Amino acid sequence: MRIDLCFTPVQTDELALRDKTVVVIDVLRASTTIVTALTNGAREIIPVATVESAVKISGNLFGDVILLGGERNGKMIEGFNLGNSPAEYTAERVRTKAIIFSSTNGSQALVKARYARDLFVCSFVNVGTAAEALCRIGRDFTIVCAGNNGMLSMEDSVCAGMLIARVSAGVDAPPELADGALAARTLHRAFGRGILKMMRATDHGRHLLDIGFGEDLKICAGVDTLPILPQLDGNVIRVKPAVQGKEPAVQSQAT
Amino acid sequence: MRIDLCFTPVQTDELALRDKTVVVIDVLRASTTIVTALTNGAREIIPVATVESAVKISGNLFGDVILLGGERNGKMIEGFNLGNSPAEYTAERVRTKAIIFSSTNGSQALVKARYARDLFVCSFVNVGTAAEALCRIGRDFTIVCAGNNGMLSMEDSVCAGMLIARVSAGVDAPPELADGALAARTLHRAFGRGILKMMRATDHGRHLLDIGFGEDLKICAGVDTLPILPQLDGNVIRVKPAVQGKEPAVQSQAT
Repeated sequence: MRIDLCFTPVQTDELALRDKTVVVIDVLRASTTIVTALTNGAREIIPVATVESAVKISGNLFGDVILLGGERNGKMIEGFNLGNSPAEYTAERVRTKAIIFSSTNGSQALVKARYARDLFVCSFVNVGTAAEALCRIGRDFTIVCAGNNGMLSMEDSVCAGMLIARVSAGVDAPPELADGALAARTLHRAFGRGILKMMRATDHGRHLLDIGFGEDLKICAGVDTLPILPQLDGNVIRVKPAVQGKEPAVQSQAT
Repeated sequence: MRIDLCFTPVQTDELALRDKTVVVIDVLRASTTIVTALTNGAREIIPVATVESAVKISGNLFGDVILLGGERNGKMIEGFNLGNSPAEYTAERVRTKAIIFSSTNGSQALVKARYARDLFVCSFVNVGTAAEALCRIGRDFTIVCAGNNGMLSMEDSVCAGMLIARVSAGVDAPPELADGALAARTLHRAFGRGILKMMRATDHGRHLLDIGFGEDLKICAGVDTLPILPQLDGNVIRVKPAVQGKEPAVQSQAT
């Protein structure tokens, strides 16, 4: 098993990710928000790269089951129903709803990875569930961190490193780590023991503190608090028993 | 002083680097080769992004003082005089020559940073000299690592971390580190004590070992062995007393 890692979606393109197993990480906050929404009963998340796409798609669908969610630079988009704070995505708001979602960094990463063979959404809140699935699948995979406007984000990197450490502990032979994956594992060793403290000091964490989203950092720093695994299915992200359903075929491939 | 860091030139664009102080690092091997060539008396290095540009520019200049140097994926380019191994750039070959240089990653980074206010070329072999200049200048700066085909390269990151550590030790107030700069400093702390060992295990290091350039790794792992500072001057890279020449103005700005 080889693990590759892109610290920003800018580093890669759709063709490079085609047919691969891909994990998208955007700790602050798209991944955490998507996991929260699906945990709270949202039917599906439809990731789109631009606000224009979000509005266009929503116009073609039934309004009573559709919500628009997302942000630009941490702030809610005019005309949208929800921002990008996981705290907003309560069961009352999102149960049975489809959510068209567009964020500055996270949905760019999701859209770039849309031709992946498997695409999972990971954050600290579901890192263990993601690691278990990757161990079961047993294939090479690529982590795509959302980053911060084209730059490395420390919280995504530390989460990627935690995922790599968990996967490494769960497979028989140590995975081969690309330079980026080794870097992330090293950053997790250095900063993984104080995740909230680390997050308060990162570029994006400090920005969210500045604009009043300090409580979100606590939610996003929770490890394994929401043990579900969102996965892309066609053009939408759902929690589905896909990994389990594929298990027999996957296991026979892995052995 | 704030330090930013791009792990690959793909992450950034010319406008983002315009008028900034920029340090380009491509340990394996463009930065090391450029420092070596200038140490051995080359008059100047002309970085170009494409092989076609290199051939075109060379056609307009006097052949007896011009050499073509560089590589694609570690191998010499057909029709070029020199590859990208620092060992080739001996005084006998390069003294008084202008060298048009095009490499897979390093010259892309140099070309992207061409509108910088100051652009320095750094590798392990001259990291101390680069750090001294940055301390004297006393301004914010951005490190652009060449990376490895759009991915993070561990050897560039560790060298960047060493540069950050040296600069931090040489200025009065601790610099503010962007997430990427903090990541590089952390990687330097983890791997900086065994640079050659680290380099033999990286993606690019292993590739160079595979294609017969093991000796180059030893040259590129030497710390402070070639204490000069190449700097972009117009369209060419030279060793010039520019930093010293600018000192009075720069110092007065910093104070």
